[in-house]
Amino acid sequence: MIHPLSTRAQAAAAARQQQLTKPPGALGRLEELVLLLAGIQDRELPQVEHPRVLLAAADHGISKHGVSAYPAAVTAQMCLNFCAGGAAVNVLARQAGASVEILDVGVAAELPAQAGLITAKIALGTADFTAGPAMTGAQLTAALTAGAARAQAAADAGCDLLVLGEMGIGNTTSAAALLAAATGHDAATCCGRGTGIDDYGLARKIAVVNHGLTRHRALLPDPRACLAALGGFEIAALAGAAIAAAERRIPVVVDGFISSAAALSAVRLEPLVRPYLIFSHVGAEQAHQLALQHLAAVPLLDLGLRLGEGSGGVLAIHLLRAACRTLSDMATFSSAGVSAAT
Amino acid sequence: MIHPLSTRAQAAAAARQQQLTKPPGALGRLEELVLLLAGIQDRELPQVEHPRVLLAAADHGISKHGVSAYPAAVTAQMCLNFCAGGAAVNVLARQAGASVEILDVGVAAELPAQAGLITAKIALGTADFTAGPAMTGAQLTAALTAGAARAQAAADAGCDLLVLGEMGIGNTTSAAALLAAATGHDAATCCGRGTGIDDYGLARKIAVVNHGLTRHRALLPDPRACLAALGGFEIAALAGAAIAAAERRIPVVVDGFISSAAALSAVRLEPLVRPYLIFSHVGAEQAHQLALQHLAAVPLLDLGLRLGEGSGGVLAIHLLRAACRTLSDMATFSSAGVSAAT
Repeated sequence: MIHPLSTRAQAAAAARQQQLTKPPGALGRLEELVLLLAGIQDRELPQVEHPRVLLAAADHGISKHGVSAYPAAVTAQMCLNFCAGGAAVNVLARQAGASVEILDVGVAAELPAQAGLITAKIALGTADFTAGPAMTGAQLTAALTAGAARAQAAADAGCDLLVLGEMGIGNTTSAAALLAAATGHDAATCCGRGTGIDDYGLARKIAVVNHGLTRHRALLPDPRACLAALGGFEIAALAGAAIAAAERRIPVVVDGFISSAAALSAVRLEPLVRPYLIFSHVGAEQAHQLALQHLAAVPLLDLGLRLGEGSGGVLAIHLLRAACRTLSDMATFSSAGVSAAT
Repeated sequence: MIHPLSTRAQAAAAARQQQLTKPPGALGRLEELVLLLAGIQDRELPQVEHPRVLLAAADHGISKHGVSAYPAAVTAQMCLNFCAGGAAVNVLARQAGASVEILDVGVAAELPAQAGLITAKIALGTADFTAGPAMTGAQLTAALTAGAARAQAAADAGCDLLVLGEMGIGNTTSAAALLAAATGHDAATCCGRGTGIDDYGLARKIAVVNHGLTRHRALLPDPRACLAALGGFEIAALAGAAIAAAERRIPVVVDGFISSAAALSAVRLEPLVRPYLIFSHVGAEQAHQLALQHLAAVPLLDLGLRLGEGSGGVLAIHLLRAACRTLSDMATFSSAGVSAAT
């Protein structure tokens, strides 16, 4: 069960905010963010001291159609890189004091057991959604449950912020199809160059999305059936994680386009999750902007990132922590002997 | 003497960047930033491990015209708050691992000596620029020199990034006058609400700026004479600090509107300083946007901050450090065994 945000905690935080040694509103969005976090965490002084990146990874049946600039083997290779701490998200997470957990819900290779890797493999990648649903209903439930379990484990470990990260060669194609299905935009509008595909690849990607939308047209209005038809295991896992995090009053940071497609899917499944979502970054890709617009989201950063992995979400941790610490640590007008506005 | 950016260091950094386990360009502006920092610092692997905020403070003769929502006594009160560690910039600097140095170049009160406070008081505030120049030529030289000395001291202490911060009731009026003088925009275009002045105060502010521009019209084309006529001691000190930091190959982070007016003044005095300036934040104030446009600056953040103190600059430290650490700490395709794009 997801509660509404705590207006009591928000009012207490707002009252404290008015006493701080700064002109009213001078910290701009940091002031809005800390009130949001207060409402989510139900605390007058919310905190972002134990953030975690949940990095869900899986492969995609549609990757065989040449929709990515990279071979599918890169999904598994990058998972090993994540576990070894060598990817961008690892470097950024160390800087931000965030832990990183890799969740294998469908990488098309057996990954050796190691620290930081949670194995909950549903299959060796989804099925090709141009030929049938990407996953069965039972597989969808398994993916949602696997993600939810990791959000619950994070909550039990004292996590106070969850960043949604992902890895999966081909997953911008799945995200584009989910965006088109949820918003009614056409395939061309929802497809971008992902990690850097050329014109031919982009044309294949649009054709694959169109094929999927046409084939599964009857399923698209139903959020569960739509996600099973077009989704990825990692996208479904992140949707499940977002819902479970909201149930535990943990703010959820949505990163890039794929992460936004997971957020969109989560909101379709459970609209009450929306206030728990914080959007970290908008990139140059038009489809990402459309997804954010559909969710009425105003992201915090615009740095041209197009990496995924949760990288933009990890950068946003610094801003969210700054919002919390200014509220908790700044002096008040009376404690510092500073005159208020005349 | 200010050197051009090191193209040798930039080329070495760019070559390394191409080997990292990510699609080319996928870290967006972080990739541009680290190349800029490489060129500034003349290092293949630039770093932001010892950042410092130089927070210059002074009072303004024009504050008696009621151009601020706050009484002039707040400048001194906030300086004590900065020294005690209770202001927003202190909280944000602790989070970012940055030191904060307060430079009193003209606060209209004697501040008790204490750690973190450098006293280089030129006068108890500038003169009223509607009645004559804000400062004499000798006072301008003293302010520029005081700021330069602190940048040199920072360099000697191993500082690898300097954030320009400021405090001075009335200083958005001085900054507006400097912007109008440098760009030719009229006073109304260059004046905003600062820390939150009402309509009457805004009208007074515009009148004061107009008065100053008219009175000193003959001086405005000369960068030094213009800064002496309309500037603040803290603005001149920051301009001097920016030039001296560039001479020592230290990147300079420009924060808000007043800091941008100091940057504009520095660039007028010494155009070679421009490539050493990194712009952290654009606020809602139109005048700030005009100043950034005039400097062809694309700021990193847009969070509605309007506090000054260097607060936006300190938030940008996290992004600049992230840019450095991804270059230095990420695995390469060959070291991680990841396939490159097909």
